[in-house]
Amino acid sequence: MAEERFEREELPFDLDFLDSLLLNEDYEGFREEFLQLHPYDQAKFYEKVSPDSRQIIYRFLSPKEMAEIFQAIELDNDEYEEFMKEMDHRYAADMLSLMYTDDAVDVLNELDKTQVASYLTIMDQESAQEIKDLLHYEEYTAGSIMTTEYVAIPENSTVRSAMTILRNAAPEAETIYYLFVVNEDNQLTGVISLRDLIIADEDTLIRSIMSDRVVSVPVSEDQEEVARTIKDYNFLAVPVVDFQNHLLGIITVDDIIDVLEEEASDDYSKLAGVADMDTIDRNPLTAAKKRLPWLIILSFLGMITANLMGMFENTLDQVALLAVFIPLIAGMAGNSGTQALAVAVRGIATGQLEDESRLKLLLREAGTGLLTGLTCGVIITFVIYLWKHELLLGSLVGGAIFGSIFVATIAGSFIPLLIHRMKIDPAVASGPFITTLNDIISILIYLGLATMFLSQL
Amino acid sequence: MAEERFEREELPFDLDFLDSLLLNEDYEGFREEFLQLHPYDQAKFYEKVSPDSRQIIYRFLSPKEMAEIFQAIELDNDEYEEFMKEMDHRYAADMLSLMYTDDAVDVLNELDKTQVASYLTIMDQESAQEIKDLLHYEEYTAGSIMTTEYVAIPENSTVRSAMTILRNAAPEAETIYYLFVVNEDNQLTGVISLRDLIIADEDTLIRSIMSDRVVSVPVSEDQEEVARTIKDYNFLAVPVVDFQNHLLGIITVDDIIDVLEEEASDDYSKLAGVADMDTIDRNPLTAAKKRLPWLIILSFLGMITANLMGMFENTLDQVALLAVFIPLIAGMAGNSGTQALAVAVRGIATGQLEDESRLKLLLREAGTGLLTGLTCGVIITFVIYLWKHELLLGSLVGGAIFGSIFVATIAGSFIPLLIHRMKIDPAVASGPFITTLNDIISILIYLGLATMFLSQL
Repeated sequence: MAEERFEREELPFDLDFLDSLLLNEDYEGFREEFLQLHPYDQAKFYEKVSPDSRQIIYRFLSPKEMAEIFQAIELDNDEYEEFMKEMDHRYAADMLSLMYTDDAVDVLNELDKTQVASYLTIMDQESAQEIKDLLHYEEYTAGSIMTTEYVAIPENSTVRSAMTILRNAAPEAETIYYLFVVNEDNQLTGVISLRDLIIADEDTLIRSIMSDRVVSVPVSEDQEEVARTIKDYNFLAVPVVDFQNHLLGIITVDDIIDVLEEEASDDYSKLAGVADMDTIDRNPLTAAKKRLPWLIILSFLGMITANLMGMFENTLDQVALLAVFIPLIAGMAGNSGTQALAVAVRGIATGQLEDESRLKLLLREAGTGLLTGLTCGVIITFVIYLWKHELLLGSLVGGAIFGSIFVATIAGSFIPLLIHRMKIDPAVASGPFITTLNDIISILIYLGLATMFLSQL
Repeated sequence: MAEERFEREELPFDLDFLDSLLLNEDYEGFREEFLQLHPYDQAKFYEKVSPDSRQIIYRFLSPKEMAEIFQAIELDNDEYEEFMKEMDHRYAADMLSLMYTDDAVDVLNELDKTQVASYLTIMDQESAQEIKDLLHYEEYTAGSIMTTEYVAIPENSTVRSAMTILRNAAPEAETIYYLFVVNEDNQLTGVISLRDLIIADEDTLIRSIMSDRVVSVPVSEDQEEVARTIKDYNFLAVPVVDFQNHLLGIITVDDIIDVLEEEASDDYSKLAGVADMDTIDRNPLTAAKKRLPWLIILSFLGMITANLMGMFENTLDQVALLAVFIPLIAGMAGNSGTQALAVAVRGIATGQLEDESRLKLLLREAGTGLLTGLTCGVIITFVIYLWKHELLLGSLVGGAIFGSIFVATIAGSFIPLLIHRMKIDPAVASGPFITTLNDIISILIYLGLATMFLSQL
């Protein structure tokens, strides 16, 4: 919801003072102080205090007041379950039915199925039905993030009657700043902003001043596409429709900010090879669990690299100096591959690659790899020549760097494009994987070249 | 601006058809089709057509219509300069004065100083002054992204008089959904949403229904902090004040989305070692220029690694098999370091680390490094033993991996924290740098251990 409670304490709040009010059983004093806080600050207090303090909170806040806190809260997945279980069952169900539907669905999605069912059974029927409808939509689609608390007005309303509808809907609706116009069949036929409404003459027909070619999103649309539509067009909300253009719900800009952040943090985690990274984890064990999958996969990939290098043991045995440049070459390949990967992954995510043909990107990356490879290769050749006075060794290392950067840059952009095309889980193209792959390629190039010129080294 | 033109063609638009209207000189037909598009789609057409077509556009669109396009457009830095230079000087100045001040400032920030000065001289005095005021604020502060088109109402207004002020301000203001209440000294004393206004009785005093403890941001606040305030509190806009609490401007949610995306993409670029990555670059040369700085720095760091390894040439000479495991060990150190780095950098950026003490994060990372290092080290020892039947070599590699992951994880979180503390440009802690540093550390550990146990290998 676009928030309209603006107040907060100068310092967000004094946690210890508030908590001491609770523990000293000064409940009147606590309610007075606490309810003056912005819901976001209330939520921060609520999640920070001890379970005992939370139990007292449940006794002294109404389900409606608790609903406001839960609309503002940002918890780890398992904390939702923990906190909901602390509450009386009836109280929790009431709270859920008083939340905006989309926020209630977000909470329920973190709980297990039997728990969800038990809340829905004792909840009031209307809220339960609305929530059930939303729970059906597939995750990450427009349907799964929309809310049903919007303001719809009939086509043949006047501005005056629209304002009346609006005033009545205001306490419930997530946004009242856009009014969605529907025909008798509930099909979306137009939209008008409150801005246009309040400057219009009271007797004007809505039909004559509304925008009649509305930008809407289908209910099955990917949430990232929805986010991009709202961002590009600078909307405060966008209507969600089914294939017959029936109005089903709306998605507001605040939910879209979360989607955009989630998406960016997803790309970032992939590049770093961390399973997921929403929050700074609480303890080493959880953190280790998130990181180990990649590290173990990579250690096996690394063993393959070692195995491949084993084939060149003879070469390495004869010229030990060769080994000294392996980290340099593998590192350069890894880094240039990661650069190309990063550009391609963000290009796919932000939709920039839709227009441009993929072939064009690949050609451009090949050109980039050629330029960066050539530059670095020449520099390294010279440095090694000046430092060791070995022209052949310098050329060998420089040549390997040129080849590695060239191949790694192409691989770094080709692999994510291919994976995206084949609709495989893009996590496969994560940074560490590409880096290890480029390690292998670069070492093969280097030791292959070295073996060819071994007699001259 | 929160956008309130909702219309667009079913398919965004038919570029070729529109362009053919232009080139066939059917200007009436073009205007009719073009002005029905949403400004964002107009902007996409405008930036895609040839300079010749754009010249015709300048002749047939008013500066006001052009201003709407420029408010919606997203261009590369140098394109702003290119496009502005195409326009007649007077026309461009008129367009700038008709844009929202913050958007005009964004455009002017991309131009060189003499060009900016020349527009400001011929612009109408009031707009020029407003723009000049905003241009003074330091980049990346609240002042640099705020706009001055807000609705302010005196404290002693009634709801009725506030609505009148609102109706008059509506065509100009960036948002009319929040009204900011000021005293006779223009100090911010309250805020009220249009939602609350329209359900209030017409004779109510604003003072009695406004929120009087307003969340505002100081004009010198970092834009990321502003973005976080709007995101956390789900605001549509936030007021900007000076140190005496005078209302200077507002920042709207659509501008904040751009800040959040910029910030995330900044962290992402750093992790990938690409100088900046807003757009998929047009040609290989530009792309190479953005990537070469890191690659060249890294090739020199790589030479240091090679130099250090040179000290162990004797060891490598005696047991060539040792070299085979170098990429594995360096790779594991690099990857675990990048994981720790990513978590720390995002933690700093999203403000999650403010609460938690830094020491606590370091201790936790040390614990994580211990667990992941131990797991991977044991696995590798076993695999090498099973594969090569060499227990000592296996233990040596496994031990080096344990040590490398442990040290790399701590370094990956310690270095960004240290850099943040010292307020050095955090770009120094970019992914490739940490990876190369961890390469060096891991190789020293491995070859150091190997040299100690050389006699037994």
